[in-house]
Amino acid sequence: MGINFKNFFSSQENNTKMGDYQNLDHIDGVAISTISANLYNNPRDDLVMFYFRDGANYASLYTQSKIISENIKWNLKQKTKKIYSLVVNTRNANAFTGIKGYQSMQKLAEIVSLKLSEKQKDDDNNPEKINSHQVIFGCTGTIGESFPFETIKKNIPNLINQIKYTQNKYIWTKAALGIMTTDTRPKMAMEECKIGNTKIKIYGIAKGSGMIQPDMATTLGYIFTDADLSNEILKKLLKKNVIKTFNAISCDGDTSTNDMISIFSTGKANNQQILSLTDKKLNDFDIALNKVLLNLAKRVVSDGEGASKFITIKIKNSKSEEDAKKIGLSIANSKLVKTAIAGEDPNWGRVLMAIGKAGVEFNIQKLMIKFGDLRIVVNGKLYEKYEEDVVKDYMRNYAIDIEVDIAAGKKEFTVYTMDLTKKYIEINADYRS
Amino acid sequence: MGINFKNFFSSQENNTKMGDYQNLDHIDGVAISTISANLYNNPRDDLVMFYFRDGANYASLYTQSKIISENIKWNLKQKTKKIYSLVVNTRNANAFTGIKGYQSMQKLAEIVSLKLSEKQKDDDNNPEKINSHQVIFGCTGTIGESFPFETIKKNIPNLINQIKYTQNKYIWTKAALGIMTTDTRPKMAMEECKIGNTKIKIYGIAKGSGMIQPDMATTLGYIFTDADLSNEILKKLLKKNVIKTFNAISCDGDTSTNDMISIFSTGKANNQQILSLTDKKLNDFDIALNKVLLNLAKRVVSDGEGASKFITIKIKNSKSEEDAKKIGLSIANSKLVKTAIAGEDPNWGRVLMAIGKAGVEFNIQKLMIKFGDLRIVVNGKLYEKYEEDVVKDYMRNYAIDIEVDIAAGKKEFTVYTMDLTKKYIEINADYRS
Repeated sequence: MGINFKNFFSSQENNTKMGDYQNLDHIDGVAISTISANLYNNPRDDLVMFYFRDGANYASLYTQSKIISENIKWNLKQKTKKIYSLVVNTRNANAFTGIKGYQSMQKLAEIVSLKLSEKQKDDDNNPEKINSHQVIFGCTGTIGESFPFETIKKNIPNLINQIKYTQNKYIWTKAALGIMTTDTRPKMAMEECKIGNTKIKIYGIAKGSGMIQPDMATTLGYIFTDADLSNEILKKLLKKNVIKTFNAISCDGDTSTNDMISIFSTGKANNQQILSLTDKKLNDFDIALNKVLLNLAKRVVSDGEGASKFITIKIKNSKSEEDAKKIGLSIANSKLVKTAIAGEDPNWGRVLMAIGKAGVEFNIQKLMIKFGDLRIVVNGKLYEKYEEDVVKDYMRNYAIDIEVDIAAGKKEFTVYTMDLTKKYIEINADYRS
Repeated sequence: MGINFKNFFSSQENNTKMGDYQNLDHIDGVAISTISANLYNNPRDDLVMFYFRDGANYASLYTQSKIISENIKWNLKQKTKKIYSLVVNTRNANAFTGIKGYQSMQKLAEIVSLKLSEKQKDDDNNPEKINSHQVIFGCTGTIGESFPFETIKKNIPNLINQIKYTQNKYIWTKAALGIMTTDTRPKMAMEECKIGNTKIKIYGIAKGSGMIQPDMATTLGYIFTDADLSNEILKKLLKKNVIKTFNAISCDGDTSTNDMISIFSTGKANNQQILSLTDKKLNDFDIALNKVLLNLAKRVVSDGEGASKFITIKIKNSKSEEDAKKIGLSIANSKLVKTAIAGEDPNWGRVLMAIGKAGVEFNIQKLMIKFGDLRIVVNGKLYEKYEEDVVKDYMRNYAIDIEVDIAAGKKEFTVYTMDLTKKYIEINADYRS
């Protein structure tokens, strides 16, 4: 599975090209447990529980695929105000597993809620009972294999035993590792901000790294905050901020049956009440949430299957954001562009091809293309001082920036992707074997 | 460029998995010349001329990309009734070469028409003069490099000198080789049919093998017939028959700036006049044309860059052809499906994913999926007698058939594609070097 879990904490891999991991520490109201249920037939962690002792407000966005997994069907049905636990397993997507897959979710929710209720009573002498509808699930892994219900069920007591009420960087990293499939690096991000005068934390973890093309929510992403915000406000904030972050990335143009992004707010920060999205006290939180989401989304791309380069594609001066996004994704999903970048070939002809096939109207006489700061196409013509050797040098960078100005309006959209390498084929030609 | 031209005729490569080449021979009214202008800095053929001594009626369909090459701009402007020559060069797409690229076409058309007029006079004592608007061009190769006008100009006299008025299999193969870029095999097809009582030949050649996703016309495809059909009838026939042939293939989901498919009819067969597409005397020709186009389209796919498998994806019982095509292309363009097939992994979960993300509405309870004759999904559930080992054996075949029945209507569409291999990355990471 790409990563040596035992050595991860002491290894170089911790120093990724995306910058060091941020120091996520304790966030009030969130408890975490990560264990191995041996789902991969090896001792890597594969089962993660987030437990909100006093409940959490929450909002979730799910895949727009017409075929959705059983855990997402379960999650969509729960209309509860507060969530007490999110349980995530890897190895098995619980997709196309039919009624049995759905019933597994139902039964696990019952077991988890029962055991957590007992624990609440034991630990806190808290008679408040959690019910099964207050437990939701994230599943990721192979589609169509029967869900390992018995194995997971057997491991629930241990999962609950291992709950840590106080977190540190180690515990977050373990959780981020525990939700990975073909990812080679855990993905974490954090911001601190204020609502009114109250300090607020926003932490997040995510996983990639295949079947990734944005359509509302992509991959698994979980955001935790101690802010006190209603489900309605959380939903609006998440929808708004997903557009230019998780919905602006593409690794392979494929959309998963299991995409899920959620935000949980424990309310422990005791900030002033926020009644509307337009409340100015929310501004800082809004910006910070966007940063956490963008940070995680970029980490997903940079660890996209087989990636050796991180590519940012900015489309400027379009009539609409949709037009810009269409061109951006056309470039991002072009196998020919992605392989040229893998080969460090400044083959801007392929970028042109991808702009042309996107179907957006513009005046080619005004087209501008830049790679980094280097002008390639100016006013619809190859830049007169274009020097292939200089651009070739630029292509050796890890991070490649492509800017396209179509001079058709005032909107813009930025898409993030990675290159297409032989390693991608290796990973995907024998994922299951 | 993948193929050893010198050894081609004696080599095993001639025996492709698509079956032996058909024996294209003489077609009245068509003359051919193929030479090397050294555009690749090696002696492979790269310049091909088709010369219609008495003119040919014709119809062309071009790329729907918003960025089109200069030769296609030239071709689109010529409103002449008869075409006297089609000149095709490889190595350089003459795309994004600006006014200079366009003027190169203009000047080459002038030179070619002048020299051919002289030849007509010398050979036939035919005073009929060809004008520059009766010459069209096919260009294929790298986008954005300046067009090698001088080199090609210098080679026109030799190209005209080498014109062969009588063809055979060797001459057609040489022409089909001469228009190739990253193709590893020449692509030819033929059918014989009747219009009324008159025997008619339909011959065709095509090239791939990257930037191939159908959008009106894809790749270069040239069809020649001795039938006598008007430009209007030819256009209608071509449009109609391209839909389920050249517009039903995808290698990499990329659409070229240079796509072009043309049909030329020399009229030498002297068939009865056809005034309408609904004339029953056209039926046989219509079917034969479809066969030639489908045969060529399949050859393009089977030689798609890096291909090791040929994949047919049939979507049945959809509400509309567009719905079926959307799902078909979603499967055909999924990197995850294509790599799984390359790895001979019966990963039907990825096929499901691609069906789901296509955005077409259907009742999943009625979904059926077959690989070859093997049932995989029946009534929205994994087939109860599904045996992974049996399906795994099936995946070892060269030709993989995927059939999806969405039980939403009565339409269907079949898409053709190939797998995604490491060789694709190799070819495209250093195409220009």
